[in-house]
Amino acid sequence: MTLSPTPRSTIQRGKKRGVTDRAALERVLDAGLICHLAFVTPDGHPVVVPTGYGHEDGTLYVHGSTGAASLRAGAGAEVCVNVTLLDGVIYSRAVFHHSVNYRSATIHGAARPVTDPDAKLNALRVITEHIAPGSWDQARGPSPQEFAKTAVLALDLHEAAVKIRSGGPGEEPEDLTPDRIGASWAGVLPLVRTWGTPEPCEHLPPEVGVPDYVSSRTRQDGPQ
Amino acid sequence: MTLSPTPRSTIQRGKKRGVTDRAALERVLDAGLICHLAFVTPDGHPVVVPTGYGHEDGTLYVHGSTGAASLRAGAGAEVCVNVTLLDGVIYSRAVFHHSVNYRSATIHGAARPVTDPDAKLNALRVITEHIAPGSWDQARGPSPQEFAKTAVLALDLHEAAVKIRSGGPGEEPEDLTPDRIGASWAGVLPLVRTWGTPEPCEHLPPEVGVPDYVSSRTRQDGPQ
Repeated sequence: MTLSPTPRSTIQRGKKRGVTDRAALERVLDAGLICHLAFVTPDGHPVVVPTGYGHEDGTLYVHGSTGAASLRAGAGAEVCVNVTLLDGVIYSRAVFHHSVNYRSATIHGAARPVTDPDAKLNALRVITEHIAPGSWDQARGPSPQEFAKTAVLALDLHEAAVKIRSGGPGEEPEDLTPDRIGASWAGVLPLVRTWGTPEPCEHLPPEVGVPDYVSSRTRQDGPQ
Repeated sequence: MTLSPTPRSTIQRGKKRGVTDRAALERVLDAGLICHLAFVTPDGHPVVVPTGYGHEDGTLYVHGSTGAASLRAGAGAEVCVNVTLLDGVIYSRAVFHHSVNYRSATIHGAARPVTDPDAKLNALRVITEHIAPGSWDQARGPSPQEFAKTAVLALDLHEAAVKIRSGGPGEEPEDLTPDRIGASWAGVLPLVRTWGTPEPCEHLPPEVGVPDYVSSRTRQDGPQ
C-alpha cells in the first residue's frame, strides 16, 4: 500500500529521499519513541510539543492530560506529526554538503478525539505498549479517575511521507579532484542508541528481578 | 538571566518540571543535534519539520534551501522550535504513570530572515559548528551559488521554556502498599546515545586519518 501523496505530504525538497510506502512508514514509527506534534493555537500561532505515541491498524494515537493545550487545540483540528531518528552526521569536503543521516516520517490530518471507552482504553494500551512493551498486562490499569483525566487523539496514517537519508557525503565534482579529495576529512560519524542498565525503583523489593519484557529491550537497538 | 515567561511559554502542565534559566536552555540546545521547527502554512495548516540548528549570543539559527516551504513560510512569521533529548523510559506500577525522562526546550517567536552577507555567513558557521564542530575551518566554505541557495532564519531565545524530567517513577500511594509495591517492575530504563566508529568516505585517500575534531567526539556523549 502506498501513502497518499497530497500537495502538503509530497516531499518538495530532496525528492530522491522520499519513500511512499506504508511499510517504510511503519518501520519509522516502530523505531521511534516519541513524536513531535504541531498544531495551531486559537489565535493562529504554531506550537510543537514532544509526546509519546503508538500506532495500530493505520491510526496514530497520542495522549495527554485533558487540560493540556495541545490536546484541547488538537481535538478535531489539523495537526502535523513528525517522528525522526538520527543515524549519523555527514562530514563533507564542503560545509554546504554537511548533513545528517536520518529516517523521518511526517503525517498530516485532522486529529479525532477518541471518546468511546473501549476505543480509548485500546488506544492507551497501544501507546503504553509502544513506550514500554509488555507493561500493559503487568502494571495496574487506569482507574476511573485516571481514565477521565486522559485525553486521546487519533490521526489517520493516510496522508504521510517518509524521508530517509543514508550513506556518505554527496560531493561536488570540484571537491573530488586530486588536490581537493583529501583536503578535509569526509565521511559519516554514526550515532548509536542503546538502552542502559535498568535502574529499579528504590521502593521495589529486592526479590523483584528485572522482567524479561524490560531486560530483553537492552539487547535491541535503542530508539531515536 | 531568566527566560521571559509569557502565556504561551509558561509551562501549563507539570509545572514542577519547568526551568526558567538561560543556562539550562543553552545546555539543552548544546546537547541536542536537530530541532523541530513548526510554522503555519499560508492556508492555516500546522507543519513541523526536523532541521539542524545552532545558537550564539541569545539567537537560534536554522537554515535550509531557499525553496523549502519551511524557510519561505517561516520568514518573518511566528514559529515554534522544540529540542528534546530523551534520557530513558519510566516503568511505573500503574500504566497511567509510565513516562519518559527528558530534557526539552521550546522557543516561540517571529523568525527573522538573515540576509546581511556577513551575518548570514556567521550564522552558517554557527549551524555547521553545532552539527559538526571543527568542520568550518577545515571544509570548503560556501561558493557564491551555494551561499545564494541557502536561506537562514534567526529566532531570539527570549521567549523560551525548558522542561526536564529525571528520576524514577512517581507513584500513587495505593501502589506503594505492601501488596502492590512489588506487583510489577518499576524503575528507569536509561537511553544511552554514543557516537560510533567514524566511517571515511570511499573516495578519501587512505593516508587521510580521522582528525581529532571528529575522533574526539566519539569520547563524548552523543546527542538526543
